[in-house]
Amino acid sequence: MAPRSEDERPTLEDVAAFAGVSRSTASRALNDDAYVSARSREKVLAAARDLGYSPNQAARSLVTRRTGAIAVVLSEPEARLLDDPYRTAVMRAGYRELADVGCQMVLLFSDTREDLGRTVRFLEGGHVDGVLVFAPHRADPLPRALRLLKLPTVFGGPAADLRRGVHLVDFDNEGGARQAVTHLVESGRRRIATIAGPQDQGAPIDRLAGWRATLVDAGIDPSGLAEEADFTLAGGAKAMATLLERVPDLDAVFVGSDMMAVGALRTLSDAGRDVPGDVAVVSFDDNAALAPAMTPPLTSVHQDPREQVHAMVTTLMRLLDGEDVAPGAQILPVSLVVRESSGSS
Amino acid sequence: MAPRSEDERPTLEDVAAFAGVSRSTASRALNDDAYVSARSREKVLAAARDLGYSPNQAARSLVTRRTGAIAVVLSEPEARLLDDPYRTAVMRAGYRELADVGCQMVLLFSDTREDLGRTVRFLEGGHVDGVLVFAPHRADPLPRALRLLKLPTVFGGPAADLRRGVHLVDFDNEGGARQAVTHLVESGRRRIATIAGPQDQGAPIDRLAGWRATLVDAGIDPSGLAEEADFTLAGGAKAMATLLERVPDLDAVFVGSDMMAVGALRTLSDAGRDVPGDVAVVSFDDNAALAPAMTPPLTSVHQDPREQVHAMVTTLMRLLDGEDVAPGAQILPVSLVVRESSGSS
Repeated sequence: MAPRSEDERPTLEDVAAFAGVSRSTASRALNDDAYVSARSREKVLAAARDLGYSPNQAARSLVTRRTGAIAVVLSEPEARLLDDPYRTAVMRAGYRELADVGCQMVLLFSDTREDLGRTVRFLEGGHVDGVLVFAPHRADPLPRALRLLKLPTVFGGPAADLRRGVHLVDFDNEGGARQAVTHLVESGRRRIATIAGPQDQGAPIDRLAGWRATLVDAGIDPSGLAEEADFTLAGGAKAMATLLERVPDLDAVFVGSDMMAVGALRTLSDAGRDVPGDVAVVSFDDNAALAPAMTPPLTSVHQDPREQVHAMVTTLMRLLDGEDVAPGAQILPVSLVVRESSGSS
Repeated sequence: MAPRSEDERPTLEDVAAFAGVSRSTASRALNDDAYVSARSREKVLAAARDLGYSPNQAARSLVTRRTGAIAVVLSEPEARLLDDPYRTAVMRAGYRELADVGCQMVLLFSDTREDLGRTVRFLEGGHVDGVLVFAPHRADPLPRALRLLKLPTVFGGPAADLRRGVHLVDFDNEGGARQAVTHLVESGRRRIATIAGPQDQGAPIDRLAGWRATLVDAGIDPSGLAEEADFTLAGGAKAMATLLERVPDLDAVFVGSDMMAVGALRTLSDAGRDVPGDVAVVSFDDNAALAPAMTPPLTSVHQDPREQVHAMVTTLMRLLDGEDVAPGAQILPVSLVVRESSGSS
């Protein structure tokens, strides 16, 4: 039999199509995964044989997918992790999306510098096939350490200060902020303040930039209108109080997370400011348990953690199948959900 | 040198005492753990040499503690896991307590029967040195599967239907319920209802038993006074409504968790019943974010998840050090924290 050129080689997609199964089923069958029906496995193996699917490719998959386990690493203070509704939604999505591709989620919290050593030692021990990482802090040394390991890795949001050669899936934080603030400008608001999340993290930095750029585009001076807080309810409440004192005539506030917005609403209510009559409030996250449940219901930028994790798992599975996926950022769109708090009801 | 008898052999405790370090430091030094100072390591190794500490024992430790990672397995519907403040407190405590002994927590959620296969495959793959398991449901097949693996394992609470040969750390659920109901009886309450947690789980079964026994001891007929709910706020609210309809003259309710008690308080308020004037409320957990923050503040049975996890980690470390720890249940005491909701302020 004449040797085929690289380009003529049958791909995993070819095998899947020939066998009449999904790509992931074909991959699992070739990887001898237990969670494939005997019938599908037979069809896939027959297709691979008929097409002359390279055993080397299959062998590579066997080598790269040994454990059936994928680590989800959350690199943040552990005290915060389990209180933040967005982070717990990420954990839930990780469990669900990985179960859907037949993988066991191995959840690792990594916070201090001591943890870093432990986490890296575990990951380099061959206990997982790949890693999904959420490391929002720019100064976090973990992403760089992970790159040295050469484990297939996909980041959720910016990978600390790494810019090149990484796979990441992020939301359009700046675009979302632009939508939110444009909505306020178009509703006739002029003194539009913001409560920004921690400025050592990528997402809050991008949201603040979107707020600022939109004001400047509208001919509004942003000076003195921004206050930073820590993503907590108490932090949002305090920042709102500071803003009210410094800018008594503010007529709107764009808050960088639903949880901080709950705090801001509390402060505004205590100060006797009507929302949205006196002050319009728009936030970010559109958390199902928070935004629609507030009084008044919050206008918020919708982002779905499950969508992000799904895209991350999809990329990771392609990497594990040995595909040559170009590194880079996949930016998911977000959309504004308008409710009573911005005075448009 | 004459061979020593079994009983004369130096123990890990002897080495630690001789070296002037803690037991866990001695263990880590002998296991070549990275997180021991060079000075402590030298002292421990010198002590082991001087005392003739058996290299076989050390070798056994080296064999049993390979990865520095301990699995924490939560066997429950994943949708519920991250909403329940008690479960998230357990995760936080697991992270903290394992970090304190130099271990990486590997958190696994295991819910469906498909998960069971994945979870067992991961655990038997040699990726962790030991397991802490929270599997509250009596019909859960996971504990039995884990026993087959012969991995050092400690259960938090009852190990499904396993009775013998397991290591477990539980709270005194029945004793706590007795304290709570005795407090109500002694305050002069006579129609003492209960909202019990799911009766397919050990802790709620024990709490219900404690409530029933205390009433019978006080000469009160418990018939018709119990309602089961699912540990959620909504479930507690609904059970309270059912009880009010069936037993309009009830003057107290013992609720099996703080979260359900929050729901019960809401129903009582909606029904115009004064707490504690008309109805005294006592709950279980004493969650710091819930019990003292309610209106009125809740009298609650205090149990600290961190204390439970600490005891579990201690037992697991002894097992990993090759100690011959007798299987059995370690029952931690609980205590009643009296606040306004039971009318004793």
